[in-house]
Amino acid sequence: MTDPDVRRVCFLLKVKSDRLEAYRRDHEEVWPEMLDALSRHGWRNYSLFLRPDGLLVGYLETPDWEAALAGMQDEEVNARWQEAMKDYFEALGDANADESMQPLEEVFHLA
Amino acid sequence: MTDPDVRRVCFLLKVKSDRLEAYRRDHEEVWPEMLDALSRHGWRNYSLFLRPDGLLVGYLETPDWEAALAGMQDEEVNARWQEAMKDYFEALGDANADESMQPLEEVFHLA
Repeated sequence: MTDPDVRRVCFLLKVKSDRLEAYRRDHEEVWPEMLDALSRHGWRNYSLFLRPDGLLVGYLETPDWEAALAGMQDEEVNARWQEAMKDYFEALGDANADESMQPLEEVFHLA
Repeated sequence: MTDPDVRRVCFLLKVKSDRLEAYRRDHEEVWPEMLDALSRHGWRNYSLFLRPDGLLVGYLETPDWEAALAGMQDEEVNARWQEAMKDYFEALGDANADESMQPLEEVFHLA
């Protein structure tokens, strides 16, 4: 992971605390077409971590975060996935989850 | 990152919101002996991400999280580092930061 062409991205979302079980279950069986689309658009080593209160941490590595996000916007399967996920999240306003992924500042890295 | 012998660990801490600048600065120049100790005890691809309000996300990969933590407990440089970091964190009680690193549940991974 010393590759200078890879950016590490971390973002936070909030899953409704009464929907954790369903959210967890859906993520055990993410649609293969969705996984394929993520891979094609450069989402690598992508993990989601859930705190018991629903705080969700996303971490991934990608050559180009803007391209990774924009590429998914053009994927029909992503539109369907985000629609299916929409009710799991708190306080996203009119935005889908993937439109609310604001990267945090990386303040330290050790390869 | 498909290595089944690597565990991905994510933890959260909270930096005092009026100490963010100093915390950031200290992490631009982590002591080389501290970096060396982390590496020797299996802390790999270790990043820290900071939200503007001070929420801190740690992410790392390690063959054995318990060994990675325990190994650092025996390092004199870690005792000094944690002492230097202690006042940056909120609500850790009597614990040092590294004693408060409770891993979140990983609910999804895409290699």
